Amino acid sequence: MNIGIIGAGAVGLYYGGRLQRVGEDVHFLLKSDFDAIRENGIRIRASDGNFHLPNVQGYLKSEEIGPVDLAIVALKATSNEILPELLAPIVGPDTAILSLQNGLGDDVFLKERFPSNLILGGLCFICLNRVGPGMVENYHLGSIAMGEHGGPVSPRTKLIGEMLNRAGLNCRVSDDLRLMQWKKLVWNVPFNGLSIAAGEVTTDVIIGDEGLCGLARGLMEEIIAAATALGMEIDRDFIDEQIDLTRSMGEYKPSSLVDFQAERPVEVEAIWGEPLRQAVQAGLDVPKLETLYRLLRILCRDR
Amino acid sequence: MNIGIIGAGAVGLYYGGRLQRVGEDVHFLLKSDFDAIRENGIRIRASDGNFHLPNVQGYLKSEEIGPVDLAIVALKATSNEILPELLAPIVGPDTAILSLQNGLGDDVFLKERFPSNLILGGLCFICLNRVGPGMVENYHLGSIAMGEHGGPVSPRTKLIGEMLNRAGLNCRVSDDLRLMQWKKLVWNVPFNGLSIAAGEVTTDVIIGDEGLCGLARGLMEEIIAAATALGMEIDRDFIDEQIDLTRSMGEYKPSSLVDFQAERPVEVEAIWGEPLRQAVQAGLDVPKLETLYRLLRILCRDR
Repeated sequence: MNIGIIGAGAVGLYYGGRLQRVGEDVHFLLKSDFDAIRENGIRIRASDGNFHLPNVQGYLKSEEIGPVDLAIVALKATSNEILPELLAPIVGPDTAILSLQNGLGDDVFLKERFPSNLILGGLCFICLNRVGPGMVENYHLGSIAMGEHGGPVSPRTKLIGEMLNRAGLNCRVSDDLRLMQWKKLVWNVPFNGLSIAAGEVTTDVIIGDEGLCGLARGLMEEIIAAATALGMEIDRDFIDEQIDLTRSMGEYKPSSLVDFQAERPVEVEAIWGEPLRQAVQAGLDVPKLETLYRLLRILCRDR
Repeated sequence: MNIGIIGAGAVGLYYGGRLQRVGEDVHFLLKSDFDAIRENGIRIRASDGNFHLPNVQGYLKSEEIGPVDLAIVALKATSNEILPELLAPIVGPDTAILSLQNGLGDDVFLKERFPSNLILGGLCFICLNRVGPGMVENYHLGSIAMGEHGGPVSPRTKLIGEMLNRAGLNCRVSDDLRLMQWKKLVWNVPFNGLSIAAGEVTTDVIIGDEGLCGLARGLMEEIIAAATALGMEIDRDFIDEQIDLTRSMGEYKPSSLVDFQAERPVEVEAIWGEPLRQAVQAGLDVPKLETLYRLLRILCRDR
């Protein structure tokens, strides 16, 4: 399959690299790492074995790539201002667009701009780290939960999911993208948020402090209440499962804290702002989310 | 009047210094500044004129002071563990105890330990800065709102208020100490709290950001709702007044932020914890206060 990757951070290089490794025709839009990657390729240190792709098709402009079968968006939502311009040249009438962004709103945003294209959302449950130009470390294989904007999964989406699985990306395809997004928020809202707002702490500190852990649960309850008000169903047992899961992760640094400490933009609107607005729209009061969002907006400004 | 001052920070030196200046017999319990103050006295740079008290009665142990007519507590609530022990030697059967602490709980704490003494609470609206051993700067004269624990004001409390006024301390005496404490919380909870939790910002940043200012109002509403549930009456116009007052203060650094940045203990339980517990006890949900409190507890730990 002819694939274009927009965004050459850890996520773009890792997913694109795995797809190229199993024979897909992958084109990378690059920026600062262009020279390094053209010269040295991509190196992935993965938990199932390291690999090196010496020859990578890298470009400085997406016009040079042209229309592809599948466009993968691996930019942060904080770069969405420039996304349509970067994406348009590789999107033809039959291009499917898969967004790997966090939080809410990316699929809606893409559907508005590319209304006749197939829009997919993929939620990445994975831990990746860019350790140098073209170099990515992967700590555990992780998975993608993928769904289609606006409806149940079509045969084409299933084929894309199968391709991702052949590349070792462990893709589950689901009929309800929105539900998956909200379920991921049940974790991201408290743990990504409190890890920054409580003074740059890892998840074990949140789990280990009775007050903070209670607050994490309170935030999860608000997210589930909002999802319920918006017509979805998330079992309340899910909260205990997430707490247990997080306890098992030990001293984990959520991705928003990694961005915060690296002075990169944090996806405040996608992860906290948009869920808050949707909850308020649905007539719900979510005061803990509101408090956290308003603090994060200030804490993460000027990045 | 024979007066003992427990706590020789900016507050203790300033109030004690002013009282000594008008002829009261003031005894200071000192710690690290003992030598410097015995040698050089107390210097106050005040907005109504500077003054120097070359001879100060300073002590290292309160046993050396003995029972006084009025004991003034100018320690932070975070030092309450050691307070009874420091205070007991200067408290006789007729000693009145005036606490100048922030937040809730100090008068209750003192009444439990000294049940037969007159317990007063004084809320200080003032900006003081200790600039060196025995040296205090005062930026505007400010005032004290004073009341009696557990009831309306007695003639004796009125006399103490008159003495404070003779010393230029601008003391208002009120029949409802608890109401005054909660009214002060309406300001302290949002502005002291958000100034720390939003990443060490001055009040103009809180007032100037729509989201944070809305959150400050939300916190004020919760405090007023809690006060109402506890049987007090605070007019909701009070919120607008506090916002206007704060706007007029410009780039102001709340005292809790000053303590936080100096790595001194912050009065988290007195200002946020105790109001939260009293609200919950009264059956009220105060989720914004709860969120702020839980974050502050972690942000201000290990100090």
